[in-house]
Amino acid sequence: MANPHSPFAKTLRVFRGTFIHASREEVLQVLADALLGVDAEGKIIFIGEGKELDKMSKNFGFRPSAVTQLETHEFFMPGMVDTHIHAPQYSYIGTALDMPLLDWLNKYTFPVESRFKDKSFAQKVYTQVVRRTLRNGTTTACYFATIHKDSSLLLGHIANEFGQRALVGKVCSDRNRFSEQYKETFQESIEETSRFISELLDKKYALVKPVVTPRFARWCSGPLLSELGQLAKNKNLHIQSHIAEIYDSVNVVKELFPDSNSFTDVYHKHSLLTNKTVMAHGCHLSDEELTLFRETGASLSHCPNSNISLRSGVLNVRNVLNHKVKVGLGTDVAGGYSASMLDAVRRALDTSKILTIQEPEHQTLTFEEAFRLATLGGSQALSLDNQIGNFEVGKDFDALRVNVAVPSGPIDLIQHEEPKILLEKFLNLGDDRNIVEVYVAGRRVVPFSE
Amino acid sequence: MANPHSPFAKTLRVFRGTFIHASREEVLQVLADALLGVDAEGKIIFIGEGKELDKMSKNFGFRPSAVTQLETHEFFMPGMVDTHIHAPQYSYIGTALDMPLLDWLNKYTFPVESRFKDKSFAQKVYTQVVRRTLRNGTTTACYFATIHKDSSLLLGHIANEFGQRALVGKVCSDRNRFSEQYKETFQESIEETSRFISELLDKKYALVKPVVTPRFARWCSGPLLSELGQLAKNKNLHIQSHIAEIYDSVNVVKELFPDSNSFTDVYHKHSLLTNKTVMAHGCHLSDEELTLFRETGASLSHCPNSNISLRSGVLNVRNVLNHKVKVGLGTDVAGGYSASMLDAVRRALDTSKILTIQEPEHQTLTFEEAFRLATLGGSQALSLDNQIGNFEVGKDFDALRVNVAVPSGPIDLIQHEEPKILLEKFLNLGDDRNIVEVYVAGRRVVPFSE
Repeated sequence: MANPHSPFAKTLRVFRGTFIHASREEVLQVLADALLGVDAEGKIIFIGEGKELDKMSKNFGFRPSAVTQLETHEFFMPGMVDTHIHAPQYSYIGTALDMPLLDWLNKYTFPVESRFKDKSFAQKVYTQVVRRTLRNGTTTACYFATIHKDSSLLLGHIANEFGQRALVGKVCSDRNRFSEQYKETFQESIEETSRFISELLDKKYALVKPVVTPRFARWCSGPLLSELGQLAKNKNLHIQSHIAEIYDSVNVVKELFPDSNSFTDVYHKHSLLTNKTVMAHGCHLSDEELTLFRETGASLSHCPNSNISLRSGVLNVRNVLNHKVKVGLGTDVAGGYSASMLDAVRRALDTSKILTIQEPEHQTLTFEEAFRLATLGGSQALSLDNQIGNFEVGKDFDALRVNVAVPSGPIDLIQHEEPKILLEKFLNLGDDRNIVEVYVAGRRVVPFSE
Repeated sequence: MANPHSPFAKTLRVFRGTFIHASREEVLQVLADALLGVDAEGKIIFIGEGKELDKMSKNFGFRPSAVTQLETHEFFMPGMVDTHIHAPQYSYIGTALDMPLLDWLNKYTFPVESRFKDKSFAQKVYTQVVRRTLRNGTTTACYFATIHKDSSLLLGHIANEFGQRALVGKVCSDRNRFSEQYKETFQESIEETSRFISELLDKKYALVKPVVTPRFARWCSGPLLSELGQLAKNKNLHIQSHIAEIYDSVNVVKELFPDSNSFTDVYHKHSLLTNKTVMAHGCHLSDEELTLFRETGASLSHCPNSNISLRSGVLNVRNVLNHKVKVGLGTDVAGGYSASMLDAVRRALDTSKILTIQEPEHQTLTFEEAFRLATLGGSQALSLDNQIGNFEVGKDFDALRVNVAVPSGPIDLIQHEEPKILLEKFLNLGDDRNIVEVYVAGRRVVPFSE
């Protein structure tokens, strides 16, 4: 804690220990015995070396004794960014994975999502998903809600209350042929979305913002896509949707939009491909489409658990990276059965290894690269990398305090290990027990204050 | 606890609640409100319905009030059987997965295994692996140790102390060309193995037995394989080894043993394929080889995490089942980065789903089938299904008491769910926190008594 007698006392917290993060230049950087200060706005105000303690304490006005010292098996890493998660689907997470995407949506998803008209049900589920993802180290989540404005606003409210950074989308879909209980007209979709955006912006939440959310080109009319593209442009908003998740949809979408050259081109023609757009999946994109992503600055959310669980396809992340397309990881709850970004890291590596088994020339992702995808990559995918994603002076302090050797935890340490090995063990074997503290914009949000 | 005033008091424990298991006939059977009694030897003495409580209590001599009643979100399932795990490799679990099998063995595995000449190091690692796997719900483990007799005996001792059912193998390898520190001659291998087996049998541990363990045909001479086959035959012992893990080894083994038709035939010709044999991996076996497995009664240990993590290959379990070959799951620590059989269940499903993505006609494994593989399937693979694997009168009570809604656990329950959904959530999302008690042969071994 900061020195209560210093003029800076209430405005500065300082941590000393190991910090591990990714940068543009280095896939993994270990700052051993570093000193990091966080100001009253939650921004990183300095990063130095432990041996500079005396100098730093004078320059920034804190007592050396007031520094929080990490323990031997602890480190800080950037908070993880879940670039694609369906909050309402948390209600049936870990179940219902016995059929492919379209059947799954029809049988399980739409009936459940239709229940979110009921705000008390939404309150219950959304509270749980926000708490759970925070405990799991998701400091930023890009949420799909449902078509219901009020419960979508509630999700924003709950994320704000718990201190999670979030993009929240009221789902838009005026061409859903699958469900009678769960649909909206073009008019309803536009009006409710406009209200949702205005009301959410009016809350002036520091960390929670609306994201324009056409569910999927197949289930939105051309006019709806156009209106949503304009809305995003007028208010400079984020955009999210799904693309090329399963092979079949690629052709269906091309048939529905005969003027477009590709699935990607459908979104592009409706002004939905911007440098604030994140598209989930992309398993079945052509190289030309990836080029269009790069040119527009749009990004992909790789959701490996979901892609395997629903048998949708296999994204070649190496090819995406080679095309210099921004890419992050997503849990895609509940097509993905885990709400943990650690699972997304593991499944991203599995997916890449499967590609190598199939084609030995495939350059497998390293765990360091998967770590970058879950942190800095996610921040880039959401165009938030000027604020979060790693430890740089001026960015917000979104961080996880990880204790690899926490008592009763999932990891046994046989001997002293260097920080990189501690990180690798945590990524492969760790869980929420190892995440002893979570900070978002400098505020400690886990453990919960209750 | 049993009634202290009854003549049966010290000999009988009775549980009431939901029991979930697999049988030969049914891939998943839910016994709702069942009553199960365990005698002093740890054997299941009766299974009935809760409504028969009065009758049962008279017949078996226990007070109805002394029955242990499971809570709403709890169930019992059979203990899980890890059919392939390298105990010494637990020392570097969750790391070192950046290269394929042979390089990995040379760089990481052999140097570490050579350290097990030091019994104090072995004591430390083996204690941790036994405790960890027990906490994770592995009631039976089929262990590879190292070439060192004394530390292999120590592993048996530790498993016995903690009450884990185990097969323990001193590894044999007289043709290992990779490591100077870690090798033995033909003579050493045979003599030390014979001593290991005699000394372990002399301990008369109730649940811990030796298993004859040629490391791998490529690293054993023909004479060594023959001697080991004879040794197993003379003493009616279990046998374990590796087979067709990576594609390259299939041809190398055929070249080393030109008189054999196939990798499988090498083991067969050396009397190492019996109905007490379990072979790890088998990713690259032909249908003819699977037929030889069925004919000899030998089984496979499917180790999906390892196969993906080391990029070794993809086992088609459906094809193995169609050939009526016995098959269980293995963690293959540390080629597999997880010592949890729950992970093996998840990765087995992933592997099957990957095959369906590649070939839509492939009949994906269901979670119920994966559950069976981890329990009854494992017991069959180790030829222990007359003793364990499910809840049948006369079998040992090897069981996990699972609480899906344990406080501070990994699973949120939104609403009341039926037992099958509880099981599915546990398999997908659960961890050791949900395994509130572990029983082996009727003895409660978790929580640890310390």
